[in-house]
Amino acid sequence: MASFRYAVSVMPKPGILDPQGRAVEQSLPHLGVDSVHAVRVGRRVELTIDAAGETDARAVAERLAGELFANPLIETWSVELVSAASSVRSAGPA
Amino acid sequence: MASFRYAVSVMPKPGILDPQGRAVEQSLPHLGVDSVHAVRVGRRVELTIDAAGETDARAVAERLAGELFANPLIETWSVELVSAASSVRSAGPA
Repeated sequence: MASFRYAVSVMPKPGILDPQGRAVEQSLPHLGVDSVHAVRVGRRVELTIDAAGETDARAVAERLAGELFANPLIETWSVELVSAASSVRSAGPA
Repeated sequence: MASFRYAVSVMPKPGILDPQGRAVEQSLPHLGVDSVHAVRVGRRVELTIDAAGETDARAVAERLAGELFANPLIETWSVELVSAASSVRSAGPA
C-alpha cells in the first residue's frame, strides 16, 4: 500500500460568469494595479489517497473531482500528483 | 511588453482549522470512499499580468497574493507561472 497526495484544481469554465474573479478585477484599481486582467477564481483541493498504485489512486481522485469537488456543468478540473510515499502516513490535523 | 499567466494557490496553514476540508472528509463515507484523508480546501486564482519581464510580473503576482488573495495569518500561498506570451493578449471574457 502506498500513499499519494493530489491537488485537484477546479476552475469556472471559459465563458461562465465568475463573480469572484470580477470582484478581484474591480478591486485592483484601488491597489494601484492596472496591469492585471482575465482573473478567474476557483478552488484547490489537496487530499491523500491510500492505494496499491498510482493508477488506482488517480481513479479515486478523478471520481471525487467530478462527483464532489466540481460541478461539471460549469467547472473544469485537473488532477495533479503532488507527492507519493511508499508507506501509509497518518492523516494528521485536517 | 509581454503577458504572463499565473496561478496562485492559497491553502490554509497546517494546524489551522479547515471546515471545508472537514466537510469533504465527512461526506466520503456516503460515497463509499474510505481511502482518502488529510483533505484541505483552498483557492486557486488565475490571472494575466502585462509586464516588461517575468521578474516584474511575478512581483505583482506575489504582492496581490499576500495583500488580496490570501490572509497571511492563516493561509500560505504559492505562485506558479502557467504560460507566457510575447505580445499583450486581450483580456477576453472574465
